[in-house]
Amino acid sequence: MTKSPLKLAIIGGGSSYTPELVEGVLKRLDRVPVKEMHFVDVEAGQEKLEIIEALTRRMVEKAGADIIIKASLDRRAAIADADFVMTQFRVGGLQARANDERIPLKYDVIGQETTGPGGFAKALRTIPVILDICKDIEELAPNSWMLNFTNPAGLVTEAVQKYSKVKTIGLCNVPVSMKMMIAEMMDCLPEELSLECAGLNHLVWAHRAWLGGKDITAEVLKKVGDGANFSMKNIFEEPWDPAFLKALGAIPCPYHRYFYQTDAMLAEEKESSLNEGTRAEQVMKTEQELFELYQNESLAEKPEQLEKRGGAYYSDASLNLVDAIYNDLKTIHVVNVRNNGTIATLPDDAVIECSAVVGSWGARPLMIGELSPAVIGLIGQVKAYEQLTVEAAVHGEYDKGLMALANNPLVPDISKAKSIFDDILKTNHDYLPQFNQ
Amino acid sequence: MTKSPLKLAIIGGGSSYTPELVEGVLKRLDRVPVKEMHFVDVEAGQEKLEIIEALTRRMVEKAGADIIIKASLDRRAAIADADFVMTQFRVGGLQARANDERIPLKYDVIGQETTGPGGFAKALRTIPVILDICKDIEELAPNSWMLNFTNPAGLVTEAVQKYSKVKTIGLCNVPVSMKMMIAEMMDCLPEELSLECAGLNHLVWAHRAWLGGKDITAEVLKKVGDGANFSMKNIFEEPWDPAFLKALGAIPCPYHRYFYQTDAMLAEEKESSLNEGTRAEQVMKTEQELFELYQNESLAEKPEQLEKRGGAYYSDASLNLVDAIYNDLKTIHVVNVRNNGTIATLPDDAVIECSAVVGSWGARPLMIGELSPAVIGLIGQVKAYEQLTVEAAVHGEYDKGLMALANNPLVPDISKAKSIFDDILKTNHDYLPQFNQ
Amino acid sequence: MTKSPLKLAIIGGGSSYTPELVEGVLKRLDRVPVKEMHFVDVEAGQEKLEIIEALTRRMVEKAGADIIIKASLDRRAAIADADFVMTQFRVGGLQARANDERIPLKYDVIGQETTGPGGFAKALRTIPVILDICKDIEELAPNSWMLNFTNPAGLVTEAVQKYSKVKTIGLCNVPVSMKMMIAEMMDCLPEELSLECAGLNHLVWAHRAWLGGKDITAEVLKKVGDGANFSMKNIFEEPWDPAFLKALGAIPCPYHRYFYQTDAMLAEEKESSLNEGTRAEQVMKTEQELFELYQNESLAEKPEQLEKRGGAYYSDASLNLVDAIYNDLKTIHVVNVRNNGTIATLPDDAVIECSAVVGSWGARPLMIGELSPAVIGLIGQVKAYEQLTVEAAVHGEYDKGLMALANNPLVPDISKAKSIFDDILKTNHDYLPQFNQ
Amino acid sequence: MTKSPLKLAIIGGGSSYTPELVEGVLKRLDRVPVKEMHFVDVEAGQEKLEIIEALTRRMVEKAGADIIIKASLDRRAAIADADFVMTQFRVGGLQARANDERIPLKYDVIGQETTGPGGFAKALRTIPVILDICKDIEELAPNSWMLNFTNPAGLVTEAVQKYSKVKTIGLCNVPVSMKMMIAEMMDCLPEELSLECAGLNHLVWAHRAWLGGKDITAEVLKKVGDGANFSMKNIFEEPWDPAFLKALGAIPCPYHRYFYQTDAMLAEEKESSLNEGTRAEQVMKTEQELFELYQNESLAEKPEQLEKRGGAYYSDASLNLVDAIYNDLKTIHVVNVRNNGTIATLPDDAVIECSAVVGSWGARPLMIGELSPAVIGLIGQVKAYEQLTVEAAVHGEYDKGLMALANNPLVPDISKAKSIFDDILKTNHDYLPQFNQ
Repeated sequence: MTKSPLKLAIIGGGSSYTPELVEGVLKRLDRVPVKEMHFVDVEAGQEKLEIIEALTRRMVEKAGADIIIKASLDRRAAIADADFVMTQFRVGGLQARANDERIPLKYDVIGQETTGPGGFAKALRTIPVILDICKDIEELAPNSWMLNFTNPAGLVTEAVQKYSKVKTIGLCNVPVSMKMMIAEMMDCLPEELSLECAGLNHLVWAHRAWLGGKDITAEVLKKVGDGANFSMKNIFEEPWDPAFLKALGAIPCPYHRYFYQTDAMLAEEKESSLNEGTRAEQVMKTEQELFELYQNESLAEKPEQLEKRGGAYYSDASLNLVDAIYNDLKTIHVVNVRNNGTIATLPDDAVIECSAVVGSWGARPLMIGELSPAVIGLIGQVKAYEQLTVEAAVHGEYDKGLMALANNPLVPDISKAKSIFDDILKTNHDYLPQFNQ
Repeated sequence: MTKSPLKLAIIGGGSSYTPELVEGVLKRLDRVPVKEMHFVDVEAGQEKLEIIEALTRRMVEKAGADIIIKASLDRRAAIADADFVMTQFRVGGLQARANDERIPLKYDVIGQETTGPGGFAKALRTIPVILDICKDIEELAPNSWMLNFTNPAGLVTEAVQKYSKVKTIGLCNVPVSMKMMIAEMMDCLPEELSLECAGLNHLVWAHRAWLGGKDITAEVLKKVGDGANFSMKNIFEEPWDPAFLKALGAIPCPYHRYFYQTDAMLAEEKESSLNEGTRAEQVMKTEQELFELYQNESLAEKPEQLEKRGGAYYSDASLNLVDAIYNDLKTIHVVNVRNNGTIATLPDDAVIECSAVVGSWGARPLMIGELSPAVIGLIGQVKAYEQLTVEAAVHGEYDKGLMALANNPLVPDISKAKSIFDDILKTNHDYLPQFNQ
Repeated sequence: MTKSPLKLAIIGGGSSYTPELVEGVLKRLDRVPVKEMHFVDVEAGQEKLEIIEALTRRMVEKAGADIIIKASLDRRAAIADADFVMTQFRVGGLQARANDERIPLKYDVIGQETTGPGGFAKALRTIPVILDICKDIEELAPNSWMLNFTNPAGLVTEAVQKYSKVKTIGLCNVPVSMKMMIAEMMDCLPEELSLECAGLNHLVWAHRAWLGGKDITAEVLKKVGDGANFSMKNIFEEPWDPAFLKALGAIPCPYHRYFYQTDAMLAEEKESSLNEGTRAEQVMKTEQELFELYQNESLAEKPEQLEKRGGAYYSDASLNLVDAIYNDLKTIHVVNVRNNGTIATLPDDAVIECSAVVGSWGARPLMIGELSPAVIGLIGQVKAYEQLTVEAAVHGEYDKGLMALANNPLVPDISKAKSIFDDILKTNHDYLPQFNQ
Repeated sequence: MTKSPLKLAIIGGGSSYTPELVEGVLKRLDRVPVKEMHFVDVEAGQEKLEIIEALTRRMVEKAGADIIIKASLDRRAAIADADFVMTQFRVGGLQARANDERIPLKYDVIGQETTGPGGFAKALRTIPVILDICKDIEELAPNSWMLNFTNPAGLVTEAVQKYSKVKTIGLCNVPVSMKMMIAEMMDCLPEELSLECAGLNHLVWAHRAWLGGKDITAEVLKKVGDGANFSMKNIFEEPWDPAFLKALGAIPCPYHRYFYQTDAMLAEEKESSLNEGTRAEQVMKTEQELFELYQNESLAEKPEQLEKRGGAYYSDASLNLVDAIYNDLKTIHVVNVRNNGTIATLPDDAVIECSAVVGSWGARPLMIGELSPAVIGLIGQVKAYEQLTVEAAVHGEYDKGLMALANNPLVPDISKAKSIFDDILKTNHDYLPQFNQ
């Protein structure tokens, strides 16, 4: 990689998050000189894409930055010669997400867009599309880095690692959010903290937390158990049991609530779905409001209301990664990468989420030693689900899909696995051509 | 081991199964010359022990065999110079088992004596006692083989492997029952079949089945899916879904129903518990009837009614093992032994249940290659539960016990894990001294 | 496999060993009904092939057996519908072997046909030919078993496992010879012994030896150290140092002398090469004598003189394997098979030599637990050499070949590795088309 | 660790290197505030220690630094409350090293102080002493970090990891020297380079080298093959064969010459030993000159002549580590640490040398993925030697020592292994009490 200015291609550029990404770019121009951002989307998203294009042009202009903003439906043009391809698209839009949330609830099972059967359905829709994008990248920008934050980020990144030659790093705002919240608890700067993270996407633990050479894991667990804020906008904040956290001995991520506090989370989801709607249904309204705001021609910056949308730190997480690669910083980030023996009980070609050093050569996981029996079983169970899901998504194999759901810890038994899978296939019929042959 | 006649010590000799064991010994005297059987039990079982002593003497006499029958409460005398120590005791008796079945049901969780929270409670009661027995063996019969069929057999054998120097093999009647039932389906002799078994106790699959060099796995799965008999006396015969079996691609054991068909099994258990009583409560009645029969002085053989008790092939499974060791047969048996890399994702010192060659040097697992993602996650999850349970049982650590239950796939979340664990500790107070310090 | 009579295809059927193989077949006809043996060879071996054909027909006739003997240059006809394909060919004949022995000696390095640079050269010549044979088998006899005893048997079997779909087991007369010699030392029957063997071909140890349940490893090592016969016809019997054997704690195979007693073995080789000639040169004479004998029309059995040739028990080793597969015996044999985790530090797809249970489904290694640091380093070093050799042989890559020799423990440094490799390439030019492109 | 000023304990403080260490401390006082340096040595080194004490005091005074210099024979006083314990002692002094170099040469085997039989002898002498030091640290400074650069650094660090609870990192000047030389070749700053290092101490490769996101491994190998400087003061600069380097595909360390170019290195050693003396014998003279210089009361800085001594960058390597730990820098250093799965074929508790991120919590290896067959065999072979050496050194077991040498690739066979081992035991009799019981 030469130190020339960068072209970024953003797949799913019509997302309401995009202004945050552009804000992040503008903030870092001295470190990361961007010359072009090409937003690309599908036809259904054309209107939003145009709104985003106009707004981000105003943002760039206001900042006096020398960045070309392009927006089009031409994915190949966007990808050609890009230095970084960022993927944040959503196959089927928010309506598909709402289905992902509602279908499992019918069977008394957690309905969530990234874990459980909802994440499974999203993976089935997303993986064929991202592998198609990868073919374009292999041809048109073979040296570029794909930064994937399309959910379920671990699963999608694993599919890319296994079925393409694209250099990719998956990322998520959960680990950085954990760090921010722990810094707040400990009243220190985030950069003073060291978290030793390892697990899977949305199933990651900080196995040890350090502050100034002191192991503060137990202290953090105590604070979380005592009610310190440790959740995210889009996850119901069911309180943690202090005795359980002490026994666990590792700091769970907010998404762990779905696995550890299943009954309470399910009860809350069912109630929400009857009242304010599922999370997707709430987001639809927020989105509508955001895009109305975005059309305001006097708006030339990210509006405050975007924060309600969730997804805090996504922009920072991804642009800090760009910075680390472009400037060869060798700083530690929590990313989704090939396991390569980091978690000894998982296959080498599994994608895990872990602390890694990122430099111009990419990401290298940090070895943090053997994980405790308290977490290793769950990691293995979910990874088995993920492996099977990738195979089902790529090859359209019913058997693999059924076994995937049967292995998902949020699905209580095979009878429900089968009913939910059949419902997903029917509801998502138009987005799952691989199963229709 | 010299080829001199054998002394067998049977811990828990007052069990209603004992006549079957004696029958098995008498049947094999030409291959396995037994000179002494010493049945030992605890004070609470003295009456039953005396009934067994009298009955088995009559059996030996009728057979014209030259075997000394001893029965006593003196465990050390029984163990001294034994060639084989067989463990079939039950701490707390059938009442404790009934509690193991009833407590989880209160929380809408599977109540079963070997899997789920019931097996967990049984392990907590049993492991300290068996390690105590091991100390006697280390001192008084260091070259003997302990054949453990005290449940949960895998967990108990793992504790012995980790915390004693006793040579031990755990065994179970499930794999041999599977073979018998498959032979029946295929209309062949059991010895014509080869099953490649690997997993954990009561969580074992036949990954491939062979008949005359032909892989018949798919055929067997089809027959099971079509309703061929594939269950055991003490497990409700919920029908298997053919589509699931095809997708699984490996032959599950009857106990897998608890994991794969959780809702249906739970519903059946709850109904039974309201009507005919839990399995333990039913067995109590059977036991009473059996011991009444056993007292009949004209009875000098195993009565037919014992078969109702469940536990078919236990006698064959254990005495075939004695035969293989004593006569260095190097035949294949499915046993519970140290993993040693056989299942690559489990620790070397985990105990697994697998096909192994048994000879005078003990058991050596057969390598059957990498297991499929369809099963490997569940094996790892249950083994994590088992590892934590062994630590909890040995050290009386609350945290380890809580994490054990939180890792058990039959326990849906940590809130239930905690409630059930606290209930178990209270109900089993007298049998869990390690937690009362 | 149906229980119909068998067709055997013998590739390299013109070998002087063939009468022994036929004798073995005749001896086992009641257990292993052979209906046809098809010997096939290359043009250069046609004369020998005809002699063998005539002799073996006389043998069959004398025995009154109903076996069709065929001999031809038509490999495809031989392979078509064979049940077992036995490979015992030698690319380049004994002259190539003599080169393999002489070239390294020029550089003061062990010259031997299976280990060191000699085995390397033989592998380069052999692997392309056997992969060609495999293509025929895949097409014409896909259900057959290939029993490979073409040396270097481990390397060649690894190439077949990695680059074809043929079901194959590699075998060698070394382990069976070890067992015979230990039985002689211990004055017991071979079948009373259990040896736990693991390593690589011609680098295999019996890690533990058992007799009647007693570990006799130390006793055997003492006897070997005290001079008990523990060598083979074709290996110079340099005495073992008792202190070393005790420290080693495992029973080495006769070929280990090349690795452990390198200087003495090299000195002996150099002297022999000046006097009676290298082993190949001696064998050439024996062969000539044998084929003269074979032409005697009154000869209708294996002549005693064949025993001088070395290779004792080859016939037994291979036909006992046929018996175990055909009759589903599930008996223990030491064979070359896919590692699959048996030796944890080697790749799953490496071929190792180890104790395995053989039945109609093939061979399943026995897990014998972690190997000691005393042997594990050497195994890993030689396996690295083997992996690189397979790649060099298949792809004709100079770099891989050079690294292979640089990793061979018998080659002291890279300067010699390079000189020897260049010499091998030049001398074997006609047999190494993969390097001439 | 609080951010208070530091106390350093230097074991073997009478070394001629010490002025360089003090210079390094003075250079970094703004980043690493040292309040006390306590040099400790044994009685035989008292005179040198006093010279060092006087010189380093003059250095501190000249620099106007506020550092207390202490020098004593009281190891416990030095260690008490130290923040860092640096070990650079040499049991038996340079005379023992000269023996280590001369003994193997008698048997035509490489004589070198860290690899081969010489390093073995040094490990046997050193390990019991360092474990004794560890006992003091466990008692008197349990939170301190031991930075070990006593050779053979990997072996000694492994002993400390396995047999004490001391927090330790082993380090060596080889990797930093490699980086400096590659930077010179590439005409870039060392900090612009990223080397992915992994292997064992004095057997480490840079598997990939990166400059600005570009993989320059092949380019570096070409330059080294073409004669670019890539050696160290104390290793004879035998030229590398370009074809070999290309085939290797990884950048070897200068010490690899002993393994790859054994014959040439041995020839050079033998010649040197006859002329200018072995390396130790040459160093003895340099040392004498240095200490004469050091006594000059007008000298108040590290004299230039010290550079001739070898050991460049030792001071930088160790003080950069202190900096990284004290200031929680999370920078990448090549260190000797517990393997923990980083090199998958080695035991978790083996010590390896690898790129690691160092912060206040210590060092965490970077995962660089599976190593190639070209290097993995040699690593495994040498690690087996090291494991056996640690056991021999700790327990004084003759068998383990003999097997260690038999596994060392520089020892051609067991007959030489035995002769050399016996010679080492005799010559080092006074320093090997563990073997004299």
